[in-house]
Amino acid sequence: MHHLVNRRDLDFLLYECLHAEQLCERERYESHDKDTFEAILDTAYRLAKDVFAPHAEKSDHNEPHFDGTTVTIIPEIKEALNAYHEAGLSLAHWDESHGGMQLPWVIVQACTGMFMAANAPTAAYPFLTTAAANLLGAFGSEEQKQTYLPPMLDGRFFGTMCLSEPDVGSSLGDLTTRAEPVGDGTYRITGQKMWISGGEHNLSDNIIHMVLARLPDAPPGTKGISLFVVPKRRVNSDGSLGDLNNVTLAGLNHKMGYRGTINTLLHFGEHGDCLGTMVGEPNKGLRAMFHMMNEARIGVGYGAVMMGYAGYLHSLEYAKERPQGRLPGQKDPTQPQVKLIEHADVKRMLLAQKSYVEGGLALCLYAAHLVDEQHSHPEESVRKEAGTLLDILTPICKAWPSDYCLKANDLAIQVLGGAGYTRDYPVERYYRDNRLNPIHEGTNGIQGLDLLGRKAMQNQGEALQLLLQKMQETIGQASAHDELNEFAKALGKACERAGQTTMTLAGAAMQGNISLFLANATVYLNMMGHIVMAWTWLWQALQAIQQLAQANEHDKPFYQGKLQACQYFYRWELPQIYPQADLLESLDDTCLNMETACF
Amino acid sequence: MHHLVNRRDLDFLLYECLHAEQLCERERYESHDKDTFEAILDTAYRLAKDVFAPHAEKSDHNEPHFDGTTVTIIPEIKEALNAYHEAGLSLAHWDESHGGMQLPWVIVQACTGMFMAANAPTAAYPFLTTAAANLLGAFGSEEQKQTYLPPMLDGRFFGTMCLSEPDVGSSLGDLTTRAEPVGDGTYRITGQKMWISGGEHNLSDNIIHMVLARLPDAPPGTKGISLFVVPKRRVNSDGSLGDLNNVTLAGLNHKMGYRGTINTLLHFGEHGDCLGTMVGEPNKGLRAMFHMMNEARIGVGYGAVMMGYAGYLHSLEYAKERPQGRLPGQKDPTQPQVKLIEHADVKRMLLAQKSYVEGGLALCLYAAHLVDEQHSHPEESVRKEAGTLLDILTPICKAWPSDYCLKANDLAIQVLGGAGYTRDYPVERYYRDNRLNPIHEGTNGIQGLDLLGRKAMQNQGEALQLLLQKMQETIGQASAHDELNEFAKALGKACERAGQTTMTLAGAAMQGNISLFLANATVYLNMMGHIVMAWTWLWQALQAIQQLAQANEHDKPFYQGKLQACQYFYRWELPQIYPQADLLESLDDTCLNMETACF
Repeated sequence: MHHLVNRRDLDFLLYECLHAEQLCERERYESHDKDTFEAILDTAYRLAKDVFAPHAEKSDHNEPHFDGTTVTIIPEIKEALNAYHEAGLSLAHWDESHGGMQLPWVIVQACTGMFMAANAPTAAYPFLTTAAANLLGAFGSEEQKQTYLPPMLDGRFFGTMCLSEPDVGSSLGDLTTRAEPVGDGTYRITGQKMWISGGEHNLSDNIIHMVLARLPDAPPGTKGISLFVVPKRRVNSDGSLGDLNNVTLAGLNHKMGYRGTINTLLHFGEHGDCLGTMVGEPNKGLRAMFHMMNEARIGVGYGAVMMGYAGYLHSLEYAKERPQGRLPGQKDPTQPQVKLIEHADVKRMLLAQKSYVEGGLALCLYAAHLVDEQHSHPEESVRKEAGTLLDILTPICKAWPSDYCLKANDLAIQVLGGAGYTRDYPVERYYRDNRLNPIHEGTNGIQGLDLLGRKAMQNQGEALQLLLQKMQETIGQASAHDELNEFAKALGKACERAGQTTMTLAGAAMQGNISLFLANATVYLNMMGHIVMAWTWLWQALQAIQQLAQANEHDKPFYQGKLQACQYFYRWELPQIYPQADLLESLDDTCLNMETACF
Repeated sequence: MHHLVNRRDLDFLLYECLHAEQLCERERYESHDKDTFEAILDTAYRLAKDVFAPHAEKSDHNEPHFDGTTVTIIPEIKEALNAYHEAGLSLAHWDESHGGMQLPWVIVQACTGMFMAANAPTAAYPFLTTAAANLLGAFGSEEQKQTYLPPMLDGRFFGTMCLSEPDVGSSLGDLTTRAEPVGDGTYRITGQKMWISGGEHNLSDNIIHMVLARLPDAPPGTKGISLFVVPKRRVNSDGSLGDLNNVTLAGLNHKMGYRGTINTLLHFGEHGDCLGTMVGEPNKGLRAMFHMMNEARIGVGYGAVMMGYAGYLHSLEYAKERPQGRLPGQKDPTQPQVKLIEHADVKRMLLAQKSYVEGGLALCLYAAHLVDEQHSHPEESVRKEAGTLLDILTPICKAWPSDYCLKANDLAIQVLGGAGYTRDYPVERYYRDNRLNPIHEGTNGIQGLDLLGRKAMQNQGEALQLLLQKMQETIGQASAHDELNEFAKALGKACERAGQTTMTLAGAAMQGNISLFLANATVYLNMMGHIVMAWTWLWQALQAIQQLAQANEHDKPFYQGKLQACQYFYRWELPQIYPQADLLESLDDTCLNMETACF
């Protein structure tokens, strides 16, 4: 049995909380209604469950192999990707003029999540291609778009993102890959790129690398980075494939998890001309890349959520079926054993998972909803506001799920006990796969610096104030319900404290003590993440309590479960922010001042 | 480079904090002095580093294989175990009359730790054998001891512990393996045993299984379990090997980590007579097993510490060598990059690891010191007190390191970033190996029930009061040092709160609400673990500050590092207990009352 997501929960979030069907009132989505949304969700669910999930274990056990000449990848991956493209899923959010379905982003993301729950390593190939295509769509010339977009959208060409180098990870400003103008509008690319997912394979006719490199006269640092599109195989003007372009596979990285996605070290132009064309303006490549980074970072957090969700559902099923022991005070050994789920500590581990993964899903779909608002809301003020909120929520959407939904996978293993530690059950695989997420697309440490050093400070804290104001609106609505009063008050108190903590930190920054200001940014990120998640639970609870009054017997336990998970988050999780706020406000320098020799 | 443990830290704990050399004043250890201790520590270190560590990666990649007839295990494991036995390490704590070295337990454990840091899966074979031998030594008949102990001690026979069954894990009272008296003093064993480490292999001439089973007339539950010694191959009265004893390998468990230790499902007596003899009295097998459980549980926690320690040292070395980026406020891209360790967030991840693993090592060696006090202190009152302390500390020694030193491994991966996620570096292997520790020898959930429901309540809370009194003694000593006053006060406050929380919970128990009393026992365990760890840091800091005054330039950074790690633990970690205490004192029933249908 492959567990992906609770469809009832997805319906709750999409329609009861986020009112996705109302998007169909907008011109862009007028050919859609709830039925077409449901049809594509059904297709995605079926494909994820029947074609992606079944080879996840085999793919994990048989990672891509490179014999020095050829890469071998299990055939099920290509079959699954063919099915994915045939169903048109890679085109779901693209304009009808591109042959796309022109679906709202929140529906596209709901589909995407099913594949990440089923088999994230296989799904990475089309998702990377989408990211590369989006970059070309936004910054490419007409010629670049005409050459590369159609085959990328229909699955003939796959894409990659080539940022890191063997000696350059988080510090992209130090990258050394060079791009020398040939004189005919093309550039000769030389250098090495590391950690390139999908860097080499035979799953597609061609691979389109989006490569960051320096022009010969480029200024040092991040201001001297340009973006190039570099195909594995050159493309003739009629669209037919030409010669190999001297992008060579130097080796594979063998990872703890995410094994189905080939991860490579690539050499560009080592044995002959490797030609690319520039995307966008010279020296503005990093800016272009970061334009797409919100999407990529939210995608990482969302992937973490869905791996957590799949693990949660699996451990829930196991706990419902597996008999083990008796409850305290009922120790008569002649009585039958109770199911695992009857034990309070197992309920704790399940409820924690539920609060992390359902809360994480709510947050990520809310972010997708903001993307829709940003791009298609009729009022400019709403579009702008959505962009501002999305900006400040991005580091939280990336980091919080990658910390806490990994923790959910840890709890799923613990629910299964010894069985969970074996490769006979998928929970250990989710745990290994998910461990990548706090690392890639900017480590969580970098997300902390982004949130505190940039997003929370920009424009006199405009984005943070907007976020706190949004939370106050929910608090106001929740206060009208006696059952939610405890939580509304708790969130109000937390918001107040978040404001106070931010002011204290900003004070240090204004006094010029930038090192101390940023020293504990990861703690700030954790604290803000927990507050945002508490908000996410409050608006879910608000919806649940309103629906509960008229719910049928089938739905009642669902809404009651939402309320109990909200209570769990407010009583067990949210209070953890107070020691964090104390630490932050004390401007503690314990870590900052630790000397290397003292370790 | 294989990192095991900081020998300077080990010296500090053994001699400056625990005064291990003073044990040589006792009759039992009079043939030893600090030089003989150091000689055996050197031997263990060399062997662990040169013979155990080098095949850890190969062993992880080439787990034991069973083709239906024969088990294949990489040859390096047998070579390492031969060297281990040749050095006499399996005999380190045994009496000289058994050919042993008669070393104090704290020195034996210091040696043991090096092997767990180097290659815990290989080390598991002799450690399991020691556990089985200890059980026979304590409860076996003279005949059983004569038959089995000599070949177990010199490495010809290995041992296993057979408790769990396919349908019986945490609830041992439900086990169904049967033992029927043959009439000649032997018993016919039938049943299945699951998760048996070292259950089948050709690393030794014979395998001695310590098996829990039921006599035909046994009462149900835990009161009807007896202990049997069941050899893989029968042993003739002259010590020569006889026929196979019908213990058959039904299959291997394929784990996420700890792969070098073969883990098996065994069938007893399925295809013919499987004969064993009873160890100790009928129906008292579980009691005998639990007599050895303290040791096994502390061993699990200690293993977690040492995997954490090895990972910490590895990430520390990487952070010192790898250049990456620049500090806040020093963004000039033409300046050279700083080392990873210069970044505040990397220091945070290293300091957290240091506080977890050095604190964990201090706790586990303190527990070993208590074992020595319990067994060889000249005064009975001290022996009794040591036993009481050991009893209440056991669930903490098992659970805290298995949670927090696993977290240390998680941080080690994060320090290395993408590299840490690959199998080119050992940190991901430690992370996978360490994930077993919160599960086996009683899940951490069960440790919580043991601590709150049993250890903290026994004899009107005698053990807890003794522990709190010990902490008060350290607080009193630390208060004399201005530099430690902040920490002494904080520990005093935490102890007071722990007492108050325990009283509140005991109140619920006295009112008969056992389910509510125990519902959040895991939180209680976490809270008490953090307080004990804060105490461990306070007595290390106390020693460090005293030594710092007269330390040479080489030692100063070591002692300063201890003080900084103490400060980290008090400012960053200890305050986390207050939301936990609040939750516990509120007798929160959120998890307890969650209905199955609401998940």
